[in-house]
Amino acid sequence: MDKSRSRGRHTVTETREKVLKRLRELGLRVAKYIEEGEFPQLEIPSRTTSNIEYDSKIRQYVLGPKKVIRTVRNIKHLRPMAQLMWTAMFASQLIRERKTSTLRDAFYNALGFGVDFEDQQESDETVTELETLVGMVREDFNIYPEERSSVFGSLVIEYTVPGYEGRRLDLTTIPDGAMIGPATTTAEFVRCDARQVFVVEKGAIYQRFLEEKVSEKHKAIIVHTAGQAPRATRKFIRRLNQELGLPVYIFTDGDPWGMHIASVLVFGSALAAHVRELNVPDAVWAGLWASDIEKYKLPSMRFNEEDMRRVAELEKDPRYVADPWRREIGNFKKIQKKAELEALSRYGLEYIVTDYLPEKLAELSG
Amino acid sequence: MDKSRSRGRHTVTETREKVLKRLRELGLRVAKYIEEGEFPQLEIPSRTTSNIEYDSKIRQYVLGPKKVIRTVRNIKHLRPMAQLMWTAMFASQLIRERKTSTLRDAFYNALGFGVDFEDQQESDETVTELETLVGMVREDFNIYPEERSSVFGSLVIEYTVPGYEGRRLDLTTIPDGAMIGPATTTAEFVRCDARQVFVVEKGAIYQRFLEEKVSEKHKAIIVHTAGQAPRATRKFIRRLNQELGLPVYIFTDGDPWGMHIASVLVFGSALAAHVRELNVPDAVWAGLWASDIEKYKLPSMRFNEEDMRRVAELEKDPRYVADPWRREIGNFKKIQKKAELEALSRYGLEYIVTDYLPEKLAELSG
Repeated sequence: MDKSRSRGRHTVTETREKVLKRLRELGLRVAKYIEEGEFPQLEIPSRTTSNIEYDSKIRQYVLGPKKVIRTVRNIKHLRPMAQLMWTAMFASQLIRERKTSTLRDAFYNALGFGVDFEDQQESDETVTELETLVGMVREDFNIYPEERSSVFGSLVIEYTVPGYEGRRLDLTTIPDGAMIGPATTTAEFVRCDARQVFVVEKGAIYQRFLEEKVSEKHKAIIVHTAGQAPRATRKFIRRLNQELGLPVYIFTDGDPWGMHIASVLVFGSALAAHVRELNVPDAVWAGLWASDIEKYKLPSMRFNEEDMRRVAELEKDPRYVADPWRREIGNFKKIQKKAELEALSRYGLEYIVTDYLPEKLAELSG
Repeated sequence: MDKSRSRGRHTVTETREKVLKRLRELGLRVAKYIEEGEFPQLEIPSRTTSNIEYDSKIRQYVLGPKKVIRTVRNIKHLRPMAQLMWTAMFASQLIRERKTSTLRDAFYNALGFGVDFEDQQESDETVTELETLVGMVREDFNIYPEERSSVFGSLVIEYTVPGYEGRRLDLTTIPDGAMIGPATTTAEFVRCDARQVFVVEKGAIYQRFLEEKVSEKHKAIIVHTAGQAPRATRKFIRRLNQELGLPVYIFTDGDPWGMHIASVLVFGSALAAHVRELNVPDAVWAGLWASDIEKYKLPSMRFNEEDMRRVAELEKDPRYVADPWRREIGNFKKIQKKAELEALSRYGLEYIVTDYLPEKLAELSG
């Protein structure tokens, strides 16, 4: 057990208590106004574009100092205030009853309760507002996206969901990998013999890594994001990094879109500037780089106009100031070609594991 | 153990031997021509639209009697013949080395081997041709789609993939459900205490069924297709039905698209008319029906033009002659409204499990 780590115990239970406490405080704040015969009001950090700033010190998008006041004194604010209060109540119910919900379920549930949301966009917006107010992500109050990511590796987790409390799963016992659903996301990490995390965008590469036993050979936990990582998966990867101290390497297709998938994992997205618990600032984008396309003579496709436009956008984005980002943006602009991770299969199915992966890790640590 | 079933043992190993035998026969047929100094030729069932027929007896699309002759005597056939032979070799290698591949990996692998495919579409086409020739699906020769479906329920499986041979997994021990990847798809069924299978299109409903313990309450295996079911998932559901004798109930959104997801599971797709091992003719589409939208007063949306066009198409499709299909096409045309499965949440998150599901099952068996 000397090599294993277990810093993460009880994190999940603490999170649950923290979010319940903050929701209670929010409710009390509003109730106090009413008891004192005043119009309830709340100060909410503004999420307009002009208030979203890139903080280069913590390497993440954050909200600036601007606030908006929501007060029931203004009759126009009555409706969004009621919607917000219902959403907070729904969240608190979910946590206490140990149930989960999707954003869409939340919308329909509100309809049934008689809370009048125009459409799902409006109810989604209110959930985001609640995130802003309590300073925690919606997954913490049990509102989840549809699961589609999975994980495999030398990690033993202990479930906290009802009916499974205290039951453990060794992730190496599931050869296809375990889905990163609500139960996995809220599990405690009880033992880990891995030394690093490989995050891959493509299912084909994930499957290749599993079949070629990358997890054993490199002592790695392997996470499949299935494209842009769902937020629950980003949170899970962050926990692997922060609670277990594991370095994270990200492998995406070699194009501006793959690059962006990696950067959202590392720096967070502008859309989630109001929450700070999703990104992994120390994660490393390990490929495919534009320079890999040349170096490995990969079958590639020419950039189309959209790719060109996207690279130009990324060039202006304050997240991409350091290498490899800046260097590879330059390379993409020069070669105007893109390649998929699977293109490495031109040298055989195993090549990505036997040659590319060790060469890349040596390059990054050298 | 008296209630459990185990008809399915050794099915997977038999399949592997069968496909290897057929690939060997194919190779020998071609080699014989060469040994005898003749131009190799093959007779391949035609997959043109005019040769795709709906067989109402076996309730599935099948290929008609038309064949095409591929002969190397014709210089134009040389290239597709070489491509086909490479694909057969690649498939046989995969099976013997116990590896899996995606269609995309197969394409890049061919490139590296020097087999000249114009693009992935051409290599996909050749894989389909090989399916037609050997009369088995590409999953049987280890070419898989990206996994995204999952399964939960009272079923013990025994893996056959390398490194896991003989190891068992009780699917109830994974609270998020197990991914239906290559290892799950090729596992033997060793014990099953379930009496039926519920297939759901939406992740939110899958999660709801898991949380509300539908698997225990209804003795059901629950499968999440994540939209249109990947072929490996269709094959898995078919195995649950045929090897274990479990009835299958399908739950989709109440719109023409959900209806089509259900019908592909039941009747197969025209695109897969050349293979007969993917559909589940006895599976039942259990909802959401157009009539459910009215009956349960569900929040709904008006049909747009595309929905209208789609319903008109389905009306002409020979698969939809019996009820509930025909009746519900009529109802959709009448009400011109659609609703999602999540719309049942207007009566609370649990409603779909506590009320809708038992009512529907009673209706179907009554």
